[in-house]
Amino acid sequence: MADIFERLIKNYGPIGQHRERAHGYFAFPKLEGEIGSRMKFRGKEMIVWSLNNYLGLANHPEIRKVDAEAAAQYGLALPMGARMMSGNSNYHEQLEKELAEFEHKEDAILMNFGYQGIMSAIDAICGRHDVIVYDAESHACIIDGLRLHPGHRYVFKHNDLADLEKQLDRATTLIEKQGSGGILVITEGVFGMAGDQGILKEICALKDTYEFRLMADDAHGFGTLGATGAGAGEAQGCQDGIDLYFSTFAKSMASIGAFMAGPRVIIDYIRYNIRSQIFAKSLPMPIVLGNLKRLEMLRTMPEMRQKLWDNALKLQNGLKERGFDIGNTNTMVTPVYMKGGVEEATAMVMDLRENYGIFCSIVVYPVIPKGHIIYRLIPTASHTDADIELTLKAFSETKARLDAGAYKVAAIPDMAEERV
Amino acid sequence: MADIFERLIKNYGPIGQHRERAHGYFAFPKLEGEIGSRMKFRGKEMIVWSLNNYLGLANHPEIRKVDAEAAAQYGLALPMGARMMSGNSNYHEQLEKELAEFEHKEDAILMNFGYQGIMSAIDAICGRHDVIVYDAESHACIIDGLRLHPGHRYVFKHNDLADLEKQLDRATTLIEKQGSGGILVITEGVFGMAGDQGILKEICALKDTYEFRLMADDAHGFGTLGATGAGAGEAQGCQDGIDLYFSTFAKSMASIGAFMAGPRVIIDYIRYNIRSQIFAKSLPMPIVLGNLKRLEMLRTMPEMRQKLWDNALKLQNGLKERGFDIGNTNTMVTPVYMKGGVEEATAMVMDLRENYGIFCSIVVYPVIPKGHIIYRLIPTASHTDADIELTLKAFSETKARLDAGAYKVAAIPDMAEERV
Repeated sequence: MADIFERLIKNYGPIGQHRERAHGYFAFPKLEGEIGSRMKFRGKEMIVWSLNNYLGLANHPEIRKVDAEAAAQYGLALPMGARMMSGNSNYHEQLEKELAEFEHKEDAILMNFGYQGIMSAIDAICGRHDVIVYDAESHACIIDGLRLHPGHRYVFKHNDLADLEKQLDRATTLIEKQGSGGILVITEGVFGMAGDQGILKEICALKDTYEFRLMADDAHGFGTLGATGAGAGEAQGCQDGIDLYFSTFAKSMASIGAFMAGPRVIIDYIRYNIRSQIFAKSLPMPIVLGNLKRLEMLRTMPEMRQKLWDNALKLQNGLKERGFDIGNTNTMVTPVYMKGGVEEATAMVMDLRENYGIFCSIVVYPVIPKGHIIYRLIPTASHTDADIELTLKAFSETKARLDAGAYKVAAIPDMAEERV
Repeated sequence: MADIFERLIKNYGPIGQHRERAHGYFAFPKLEGEIGSRMKFRGKEMIVWSLNNYLGLANHPEIRKVDAEAAAQYGLALPMGARMMSGNSNYHEQLEKELAEFEHKEDAILMNFGYQGIMSAIDAICGRHDVIVYDAESHACIIDGLRLHPGHRYVFKHNDLADLEKQLDRATTLIEKQGSGGILVITEGVFGMAGDQGILKEICALKDTYEFRLMADDAHGFGTLGATGAGAGEAQGCQDGIDLYFSTFAKSMASIGAFMAGPRVIIDYIRYNIRSQIFAKSLPMPIVLGNLKRLEMLRTMPEMRQKLWDNALKLQNGLKERGFDIGNTNTMVTPVYMKGGVEEATAMVMDLRENYGIFCSIVVYPVIPKGHIIYRLIPTASHTDADIELTLKAFSETKARLDAGAYKVAAIPDMAEERV
């Protein structure tokens, strides 16, 4: 007989194992001041590349005005209860209607949080005879949705059409054998780590050959891709083929909450059967009003999207010209691939922060294979040419040091913040 | 080969099947105006018994002031990103510290939403050899957490100590056979439908006989029970025996978000390994500041809790004196049990709303057995003596009509709102 707690404290996990040296610096850092390309970290100004404030909406004066006015008018408590019981309002419905229109769908359901929203939507629509076929690099919230599924799930290699066909063959065979059930394919509009778009157009074309429904999580594409900002489906010219379109408000909308859009009859089914919404509180009114305003600006101010893309291309071209490997991103998400150990990566991050004032996210072993380092830069409409130039210079100089072995240190230095 | 969507629209589920007549009235109603005991429903004033605004904090002038000021100062976007990556702040940590102190625990983790918070916490701490033993009437968010668990889960009959012991015996035997794994018992501080407290004290006493850890979801007990409002554990004198104490902010705190409190080493483990928090956005700053203020008032103004209890007892005693069956609630949650069909229940609800201006929640078949009706009344500190008296009168009169067969109608009337 073992005690659960005893077991847990023996291994704090991939990131937790470093917490005594890393807490408050490499993990749980505090970025202070107004959201933007320059924020404070430990009292020092940083050029920040870690926030998904793609369009710069977070602190736009009109957004700040609506956020403040809505909170003053309604407080942050209203409405109380789940949408179905006592938490509904005209504004919640208006936001659903506008999101559906924007995404060229019949209807949309507003969700109180994206993570539990998509999880429960997958759960609501899939029965035990249905088969879910999903991209191997799907976000954690999709994976957790799959884990709730009592039926079969087949994974296809990331963006690999041939492997997807193989899995669709398997699923079709299984369903024919079962005599019941259907197929739901799940992928993403944009993969948030590597920045490559999901192969939505190719997947949609498979509907000529296979019978399935397609759900796409377009968290990063919503507001950033396509002629009107409607996302990866619009960008690839296959929005109609996406049966259920999902996005969180946590990225280009700079808010919380999420939505799923699709055919009226199916959204209504979800509305009446989605556990995380039926059994949990509705999105607060000021957040709904703030999102209505954000959506309006996202729709009517394409110059924000243009600025994002100008910045993204400047950053990406600058990195490529300097010989950096940014993989095969075809969105604004900008990974920078390097080689080195965990200790080297942390030393380089410290050099970037302490000596260049550059703050970006880093991914190392065991999240990715040993010896690899990924820096992830998120350009936004708020970044300036100076931000980009200083960052390119910093990356060039630190990369040279990395290659010269200058960051070879014995251990991760103790950078932890004192904890209360 | 079946199409998933084709199958879904054949059966909209227990509540969804009535949506064409019920939408906007029995389901997804809109309560308008400021949160309180009197709100508007379809233009008419109602005495509202559906909101978990237990302490009346939702519209307290000091809360409204802090909510408005915090949103004006920070906007609703800050911070962006997950706590671990870029969404941490001194205020998030301060709220964790104050919640831990209030619950007499070493540490607490703040969560961006309660539903996904407890789900993922269960997922984070339980390995495949661990056994979860849980109360049969646990909330949907706990059940969804169990559904993520790859190991065994044994259910015990609601609040049935003997059956719990039986399941603990089973679990212990299994774990000894496996040679590894531990037991997590999960129950609630207060069961939100029936209003009875979980038998926490009795469960804690079993620790003398069995080895297990106890997680309690005290969503309704937090702020309402115990000498200081610390909840069901305090009320029963067994707070120390609850290893992991969880509550949402959606009830007495009249907010969103949640927390889990427990030993520092375990909360830290959760902090670094809980998927719904590591992979999703942090709680917005104004919500954090609003919750700091709510917690302060909840701690320092016991008169709000006293008023809640005065109202709860007036309502419950009034119902009992009039011969109503309110089951075995020992909290403020007040169920009223009646007999009748679904159509009768809806006709009675309409009479209550249209002719008495009383708005409360109702539960019918298939959620509970055929022929049964449960009205659920949530008294709060905001209710007045007049609210209670009018409600008692309305219940007496409508119950007499129900018993006389006056509500026997052929079908649920079409009360649906026109949908855009």
